Amino acid sequence: KTSFNIAVLPGDGIGPEVVNESTKVLNAVGEAFNYTFEFRYGLMGAEAIFKTGNPLPDETLQICKESDAVLFGAIGDPSFDHNPDAKVRPEQGLLKLRKELGLFANIRPLKTYASLIDKSPLKKEIIEGADIQIFRELVSGIYFGEKFTDEESGYAYDICTYHRDEIAPIVHMAFQEARKRRKKLTLIDKANVLDTSRLWRKVCKEIAQEYPDVELDFMFVDNAAMQLILNPKQFDVIVTENMFGDIISDEASVIGGSIGLLPSASIGNENALFEPIHGSYPQAKGKGIANPVASVLSTAMMLDYLGLEQAAERLRQSVEYAIENKYVTVDLNADLYYSTSEVGSFIADYI
Amino acid sequence: KTSFNIAVLPGDGIGPEVVNESTKVLNAVGEAFNYTFEFRYGLMGAEAIFKTGNPLPDETLQICKESDAVLFGAIGDPSFDHNPDAKVRPEQGLLKLRKELGLFANIRPLKTYASLIDKSPLKKEIIEGADIQIFRELVSGIYFGEKFTDEESGYAYDICTYHRDEIAPIVHMAFQEARKRRKKLTLIDKANVLDTSRLWRKVCKEIAQEYPDVELDFMFVDNAAMQLILNPKQFDVIVTENMFGDIISDEASVIGGSIGLLPSASIGNENALFEPIHGSYPQAKGKGIANPVASVLSTAMMLDYLGLEQAAERLRQSVEYAIENKYVTVDLNADLYYSTSEVGSFIADYI
Ligand SMILES: CC(C)[C@H](C(=O)O)[C@@H](O)C(=O)O
Ligand SMILES: CC(C)[C@H](C(=O)O)[C@@H](O)C(=O)O
Repeated sequence: KTSFNIAVLPGDGIGPEVVNESTKVLNAVGEAFNYTFEFRYGLMGAEAIFKTGNPLPDETLQICKESDAVLFGAIGDPSFDHNPDAKVRPEQGLLKLRKELGLFANIRPLKTYASLIDKSPLKKEIIEGADIQIFRELVSGIYFGEKFTDEESGYAYDICTYHRDEIAPIVHMAFQEARKRRKKLTLIDKANVLDTSRLWRKVCKEIAQEYPDVELDFMFVDNAAMQLILNPKQFDVIVTENMFGDIISDEASVIGGSIGLLPSASIGNENALFEPIHGSYPQAKGKGIANPVASVLSTAMMLDYLGLEQAAERLRQSVEYAIENKYVTVDLNADLYYSTSEVGSFIADYI
Repeated sequence: KTSFNIAVLPGDGIGPEVVNESTKVLNAVGEAFNYTFEFRYGLMGAEAIFKTGNPLPDETLQICKESDAVLFGAIGDPSFDHNPDAKVRPEQGLLKLRKELGLFANIRPLKTYASLIDKSPLKKEIIEGADIQIFRELVSGIYFGEKFTDEESGYAYDICTYHRDEIAPIVHMAFQEARKRRKKLTLIDKANVLDTSRLWRKVCKEIAQEYPDVELDFMFVDNAAMQLILNPKQFDVIVTENMFGDIISDEASVIGGSIGLLPSASIGNENALFEPIHGSYPQAKGKGIANPVASVLSTAMMLDYLGLEQAAERLRQSVEYAIENKYVTVDLNADLYYSTSEVGSFIADYI
């Protein structure tokens, strides 16, 4: 297969700007390797609410379902965050999309770049050589359990629920990844308090029988939040439930020095979506200062997923080349910097 | 009042060792200031399970209820953590005690010590001068909602629930504290996903009307987990729900450089409990290497609570004197160190 249907959802804030660089580099990859990428655009998030009243219009969902992969920018808008009573919210679009596409595993690789190591708030000796892969469950848990607010009584509820079959697939995925790496898997949970965490622990232990070559250990989420900063090198592959994964993986982004560099893949059995970890960063919208690298590296993860490993590798090398030659946005070098689109073009040209 | 009933619950792991130093310094305080502290000991945690089958025996609860304040060590034992099927767990004792005593606010002050600033995994310029006070709701949320596991169907549930009256008291407390400090309060929540978080946001906004001199802002918990490391100095007072508080406050402990230094107070309308942030640290049990400072500083918070501010101040000065003169345990200086009890005695003598 050499021709691919890519659904493109620019979303909110800086999303459109960074996704634009992803399609740019994909076109360059297409020329270099003789692939065709056809882009179909869809509305999502606050943009979609403003235009259609719906954070995930049916048409967008359809485009995604028919695609080989989805490229996504960012979601979120301050006008909704400050209004706890809003009934329709941008994030609902993303959550619904994850659910509808069955994207059960959110994968976030974390590495440090030699030339950027001084950017991290952490000391060099703490982070140098850290290399972590986080697997976050993405379509269940407290995000998707029943939730309601009873204005009259003054109560609000969010139900966290897991079925063992919602846990097993991502745990298998994480074990398989650990096998390819340093053979250590850490489950992060709160099994001393939560029933759902105890179920995670149980399912992990059962599945561990099938991976005797991988060392499995358990860490409470409060301790993990501390250990990630004290000694990130102790981790290889991490697997965790939805909410803990949200917190832990954003926290872990400080290891790399800049959230503007970090990609993610959300994988299901039939579909996959690729997005930068950073959010919509509304303050930077339209200024041409957003770092496109996280989106471009997400695109590299997409190429891997599509089986185009060579192209993915080339793209990653181009990014590294750009970073090493300080062809970067202002977040990485305030003294001499380039715009979002200049950095994207530099990477595309190098391909 | 010059005579006080103190309930002492040494608990598990290094708990007994560090609490022993707290009673030691309290006796010194008593002599210096002419107070009498009467100690009544109670079993709790794994120790209590082994001896009575109950992690919080009625007698212990009674002792606590009759006390002016409770000193607590630590809880937890690896033999339970590795058994997801255990029906009785040490942590249940602590959770029940918090609930029964109505300890709705867990308060954790975070500061950096000039002489220890190099101990932190974070760079000096990031943490120097950071000074944060965290208010964690402690008797509701997902910790105390209904939870159950249905072995047959394979489902587990944990219900997170809040009533507005469970939110308001701690929010008031946090606003009042902010007023005494730099006048900034940050609510950490996940209001873009959770109904309970939206209720928190709403209640905070309402209460903010009564504190027009305090600036209130909101931060999503994933972003907060990142911001705490990127720029801890942006925070003054933080208020948050139970589970987020558990994660965020352990994470924030890295700012100070050692979890062995950090105290906490759990306050209710009628009772109060004081404990170090560090856990039971079973690997160190009985070795005399545990750092007693967190427990001793918790004791200082207790003196404040009892209205003995002068004694509290003296105790804090003694601790600072010990640290500045490198009279510390091995975690703070591997080259020249003292035992748990030597450090405690040094502090007591200085009083
Ligand atoms: C936008 C928000 C709903 C989302 C989440 O919490 O999952 C984001 O933080 C993420 O991690 O992708
Ligand atoms: C021991 C455990 C139940 C407890 C909690 O999660 O509250 C501890 O981590 C704490 O923070 O005091």
